[in-house]
Amino acid sequence: MTEATKYNKPKLTLVGAGPGDPDLITVKGMKAIASADVILYDALVDKDLLNYAKTDAIKIFVGKRGGKRSIKQEQINLLIVKYAYQYGNVVRLKGGDPFVFGRGHEELEYAENFGILTEIIPGITSAISVPALQGIPLTRRGISESFWVITGSTKESKLSKDLELAAQSTATIVVLMGMNKLPEIVNLYKTMGISETPVGIIQNGSTPTEVAGFGTMDNIIEIVSEKNIDSPAIIVIGKVVETHPELAEVLAEINHC
Amino acid sequence: MTEATKYNKPKLTLVGAGPGDPDLITVKGMKAIASADVILYDALVDKDLLNYAKTDAIKIFVGKRGGKRSIKQEQINLLIVKYAYQYGNVVRLKGGDPFVFGRGHEELEYAENFGILTEIIPGITSAISVPALQGIPLTRRGISESFWVITGSTKESKLSKDLELAAQSTATIVVLMGMNKLPEIVNLYKTMGISETPVGIIQNGSTPTEVAGFGTMDNIIEIVSEKNIDSPAIIVIGKVVETHPELAEVLAEINHC
Repeated sequence: MTEATKYNKPKLTLVGAGPGDPDLITVKGMKAIASADVILYDALVDKDLLNYAKTDAIKIFVGKRGGKRSIKQEQINLLIVKYAYQYGNVVRLKGGDPFVFGRGHEELEYAENFGILTEIIPGITSAISVPALQGIPLTRRGISESFWVITGSTKESKLSKDLELAAQSTATIVVLMGMNKLPEIVNLYKTMGISETPVGIIQNGSTPTEVAGFGTMDNIIEIVSEKNIDSPAIIVIGKVVETHPELAEVLAEINHC
Repeated sequence: MTEATKYNKPKLTLVGAGPGDPDLITVKGMKAIASADVILYDALVDKDLLNYAKTDAIKIFVGKRGGKRSIKQEQINLLIVKYAYQYGNVVRLKGGDPFVFGRGHEELEYAENFGILTEIIPGITSAISVPALQGIPLTRRGISESFWVITGSTKESKLSKDLELAAQSTATIVVLMGMNKLPEIVNLYKTMGISETPVGIIQNGSTPTEVAGFGTMDNIIEIVSEKNIDSPAIIVIGKVVETHPELAEVLAEINHC
């Protein structure tokens, strides 16, 4: 590692690891891992990606264990700065895309304030790819001409007020980190009188443990309970969900009754 | 090619090529190109990606020339089916993500109706990555807790009504294929009395010919004209655009006056 110290300027590269499947990282992300002196990685990142790293690269897990972050955000920021000055190339490997929620921009800004060079390598966001891998396009001509991605976990941990506006639109809505808000979301749609809105929930998308359920706001809570779907999961709301074969079958049955 | 015909079952793989930089394709996408018998590629795809292909793979350009599609969508659908049955593995290589606008789902459905196996390999959407590469995160704690992606080019080629709802929200708004709707968008914000809303426009994002302009709804049309920004470009609207250093400078000047 002393050699690296001599030649590598302090640098932070934020790399998006994608939704879970390790082959869904970008070629650029793979190359960044291969040239890293230090890798700080999150819980939702597949460990196979660390195989791209140099044998003497330092690999540090900074994710959540049992739902709780073992290292605080402030500590991660400090680690980035410390390792960048000590070893050179730090790769911060984050699940999904580093700039879609997940505080990537805060880490970048923090490092820049210490005069560290920064680079961002986008990742495949689960918001789009996880529904896609289930065959659900967020947009489809004549069905949905926009999509809205919302977090269920705001700073004040309230359901975003934006959801009420989104529910009035033709947009497909994707809620990330929103499983504990599902009853609230369902209530909102019932109150608005649009409880027949299709909804899909997908846990561990793009991985071998993927599980999914499809229905409408009227029955989705039952379906989630039957299928034992839990966090981390993605909630997709809107007419495009009807393109999923499982829901198409259910709807055909309802129309038949 | 006759060998391929013998062994490869008819298959369509929709692959997202990402925003422009060829290294922003996924590892999985790269592998799909390498195993393709036929590649049908779009205008916004970097030709370097075709170097991953087998030497005897058939490569066909089906994109737009001078703004006009040289081959109609119906013809692309037919080509996919024809080549899948004739040669086996067809890769449909599309700019960005195949399920974010761009009719990927229609192509998939068409092929499935002919009994062709299909697979989707997500790509990095320009909607998120192009702002990110300019240092603009679509979400940032305390600034924006959601983002809304809209096309400027709807089936009826009208400005999506969703934009008016989106403008009332705290969401960051991204308009794809919307440059010819820019005056309409600006008017909407002026009519709503929120013309000070920050806006950024980025053409050819992630490529060597990238050009960008930043301002507010009050002056963005001037800026676009000064900088000669043209289609294809991405419009980003909302408070997160203030994180861009160029706009931060402009806003500091305004406050100083």
